[in-house]
Amino acid sequence: MEIPLKRVAQIVSGKCVGDEKFVVTGINSLDQAGPSEVSFFSDRRYSESLKITKAGALLVSEKNELFKGPQVVVPGVELGYAKIAMIFAKSSKRYPGISPDAFVSKKCRLGEDVSIFPMAYVGDGAEIDDGATIFPGVVIDERVKIGKRTILYPNVTVLRDCAIGNDVIVHAGTTIGSDGFGFVRDGSTSVKIPQTGIVQIGDHVEIGANNCIDRAAFGKTWIKGGVKTDNLVQIAHNVVIGEHSIIVAFAGISGSSRLGKGVVIGGQVGVNDHTEIGDGAMVGPQSGVAKSIPAGGIVSGTPAIPHRERLKTEALIARLPRFSNRVRDLEKKVQELEDRLSQGAG
Amino acid sequence: MEIPLKRVAQIVSGKCVGDEKFVVTGINSLDQAGPSEVSFFSDRRYSESLKITKAGALLVSEKNELFKGPQVVVPGVELGYAKIAMIFAKSSKRYPGISPDAFVSKKCRLGEDVSIFPMAYVGDGAEIDDGATIFPGVVIDERVKIGKRTILYPNVTVLRDCAIGNDVIVHAGTTIGSDGFGFVRDGSTSVKIPQTGIVQIGDHVEIGANNCIDRAAFGKTWIKGGVKTDNLVQIAHNVVIGEHSIIVAFAGISGSSRLGKGVVIGGQVGVNDHTEIGDGAMVGPQSGVAKSIPAGGIVSGTPAIPHRERLKTEALIARLPRFSNRVRDLEKKVQELEDRLSQGAG
Amino acid sequence: MEIPLKRVAQIVSGKCVGDEKFVVTGINSLDQAGPSEVSFFSDRRYSESLKITKAGALLVSEKNELFKGPQVVVPGVELGYAKIAMIFAKSSKRYPGISPDAFVSKKCRLGEDVSIFPMAYVGDGAEIDDGATIFPGVVIDERVKIGKRTILYPNVTVLRDCAIGNDVIVHAGTTIGSDGFGFVRDGSTSVKIPQTGIVQIGDHVEIGANNCIDRAAFGKTWIKGGVKTDNLVQIAHNVVIGEHSIIVAFAGISGSSRLGKGVVIGGQVGVNDHTEIGDGAMVGPQSGVAKSIPAGGIVSGTPAIPHRERLKTEALIARLPRFSNRVRDLEKKVQELEDRLSQGAG
Repeated sequence: MEIPLKRVAQIVSGKCVGDEKFVVTGINSLDQAGPSEVSFFSDRRYSESLKITKAGALLVSEKNELFKGPQVVVPGVELGYAKIAMIFAKSSKRYPGISPDAFVSKKCRLGEDVSIFPMAYVGDGAEIDDGATIFPGVVIDERVKIGKRTILYPNVTVLRDCAIGNDVIVHAGTTIGSDGFGFVRDGSTSVKIPQTGIVQIGDHVEIGANNCIDRAAFGKTWIKGGVKTDNLVQIAHNVVIGEHSIIVAFAGISGSSRLGKGVVIGGQVGVNDHTEIGDGAMVGPQSGVAKSIPAGGIVSGTPAIPHRERLKTEALIARLPRFSNRVRDLEKKVQELEDRLSQGAG
Repeated sequence: MEIPLKRVAQIVSGKCVGDEKFVVTGINSLDQAGPSEVSFFSDRRYSESLKITKAGALLVSEKNELFKGPQVVVPGVELGYAKIAMIFAKSSKRYPGISPDAFVSKKCRLGEDVSIFPMAYVGDGAEIDDGATIFPGVVIDERVKIGKRTILYPNVTVLRDCAIGNDVIVHAGTTIGSDGFGFVRDGSTSVKIPQTGIVQIGDHVEIGANNCIDRAAFGKTWIKGGVKTDNLVQIAHNVVIGEHSIIVAFAGISGSSRLGKGVVIGGQVGVNDHTEIGDGAMVGPQSGVAKSIPAGGIVSGTPAIPHRERLKTEALIARLPRFSNRVRDLEKKVQELEDRLSQGAG
Repeated sequence: MEIPLKRVAQIVSGKCVGDEKFVVTGINSLDQAGPSEVSFFSDRRYSESLKITKAGALLVSEKNELFKGPQVVVPGVELGYAKIAMIFAKSSKRYPGISPDAFVSKKCRLGEDVSIFPMAYVGDGAEIDDGATIFPGVVIDERVKIGKRTILYPNVTVLRDCAIGNDVIVHAGTTIGSDGFGFVRDGSTSVKIPQTGIVQIGDHVEIGANNCIDRAAFGKTWIKGGVKTDNLVQIAHNVVIGEHSIIVAFAGISGSSRLGKGVVIGGQVGVNDHTEIGDGAMVGPQSGVAKSIPAGGIVSGTPAIPHRERLKTEALIARLPRFSNRVRDLEKKVQELEDRLSQGAG
């Protein structure tokens, strides 16, 4: 594909500086771009790369003198890059139609232009809507609903009755709808609590690879529209994740917790059960969230406390050795004072 | 299904208060139950829901005046709920017999009433006992044994020679019997130590989704009867997990460690290799267990110490800022005292 | 298989002490070895086992008087054990040729002696080199390259264009080449950054079960030769892992970070994005690496600091209660001193 730089500027709502007829054939990082590719610069850590890049054009937030070629000036360089990259990205090839080497129940309902690869499985009563793509090794259990243009990558499992929205991407190896972890102790043994609910996933959600999203005990576990999860994330039964929240790798959200909109959960975070996390709150990596967090709260550490306090505490901990010395000095001085007073009194 | 409340009371060994002929068609949470359903109340956090529930009947630990309908009084409400829910739960539909779209070796042995879905694989010498259910995408490698009524959900892998007991549930995407992580350094490279043992899983075990349970270097990795693991749990080679222990999501048990009976391991816990954890011990979430824990021990933190000590230490850390001020005050006062004494002496 | 002890000694470059014609039929741990098996002793924790073992012969680092049978003395006992175990290890049976029950694109290229099990999938343009083994449920997407003698265990997914070297082992359930976690905020929503790069894996790499290795945004995510990863490891987009590094379970390496050669990353470690970890550095379990680490550095904790400092800090934290008492004592004494001085002055 070839597009003039002028068109690039239009797409990102930016302004051309220099030759707007320059023909762009792709987008690439500063160190890998070729002379017919556009690159982008927004992170000062890469200033050195900027000087030696072979890129033919550049997306920048303000005209940059280090780069000699034509530039597109746009306030949100990263967003511009994403938009242009989307245009040049080759999407995965879809299987043309329904493979005879897949197992597709005769009792399921398929929309138009559905792609089902060999070795996929679609059970009774499943509904797969227009334009969805089902990769090899995917298992769609009975009565599952898959929305329009949704993509399930290889070896994804979606269990009975779960409902996935439109324009969703689920990466390989993820399990959606396995039983929530619910047991009651009966003496020394554990009695299983049947998990009779489902998982519902809204539109424009992207779920990473090897995630586990458990079905609800009752009702539903609910991932609302626009949520993005990284790889190896665990979402327990009856959790609700608000719109456009982001959950990074190895984070675990325990049962019945509710995240608001636009929440960001760092990697390796654990959130206790029945915990509320307000809109726009942020939880730093490796934190343990034991209590609810108000909207806009920024917390870190285990147990998670406001991040500013955490930094103070950490600084104090780092100063403990010096602290220890100061107490020892004080003890010596007080001893001396006591001795002097005793001598004075003696 | 319809059962009278009297029968509900019998099943949970409880006592009917009110109309014992009330007909129950299901069990549900307070906020979702309909007028012909029974609900349950044991957690005061849900008192508000109790006032407005539409449930027709209630399981309670003592007669509750806020609820006007018939009640079943039973000391263990949660357990009663689990028992009644089990009765109403719809189980997954089993494939009737052996699908011609599965690959089943002619050299394997199948019991009666075995269900094998399309797209499953069963290798040479495998033995699948009566009533077992093998979902699509499951891979049962050579000489694996699967017990009676055991359920393997989609895309589970069980590797050569491993043995799974009766009434076991393995959730989707789990790997049982891959090689333990064993290498010896030879200069700068790592030489693989062959992992020649197996994994043995006892009866009534439930393994969560996307778990990894490694085969032993020698002998066996052993998950004893009644153990329950959450999702994304890692159990390394030669580990032994005692009966009815519970392991929460993202916990990792390193090589050759031995857990006793009824141990509870919190989420995101790491247990060092060659560590003994005694019967009934509990490890709080995100802890790092570096040393063995005696029976009944309750530990938390990294490194894990008795939980009470941990709480004290955490409280002291939280007080570090005030602490710092006190030391500064002391320094000032001691300086003043020194000055006064020097003046006095002067 | 039967080999004389003399041959065992040759293989491990050791020295026979005692009957070198002793016939060895296998290798096993001290407590499980039979009278025709050789065992090994290098860990004093197992001295008791040494006294009662039924093993017929022993690998030891120096002649051991507790054991009466013939011995092979070799400095690296563990390495010797690995070498002998490799000789006796039964490898998994390979499927003879290409199963008609696999789906193999006509547009792929297969080397000699390739084994493809039933229920595997190989897409258009894939290249599978001589002697590779593809287990059931494996999905090899379009244009993927698999090297010589490489083994992909069940339900592994390798996505488009990724390249895996020779003599690689990938354990079950692992996902290679799913999209890196890259989004740009556009108001309250997240815009996906297309991930157009690949994953490249060098020779002699072993990847554990249920790992996730993401494709690069541009260029490649690169696992260099000899790297070994444990189960449930996450490697983000554009990460480079140097030769012979070792990464333990649940560790996550964030985007664009670069590990040198021979790095050891402990279990449940998180490494921040754009972080450099020098050759031979070691990161203790559960650490959070926020800053780059020089070659040879040994760090631990969150945030990770040099391990020696961490130990000192932990010791000081453990002493906080006593510390608290000392400050209280000081306050009392200073008060007394002040009182005495005031009285003296009064």
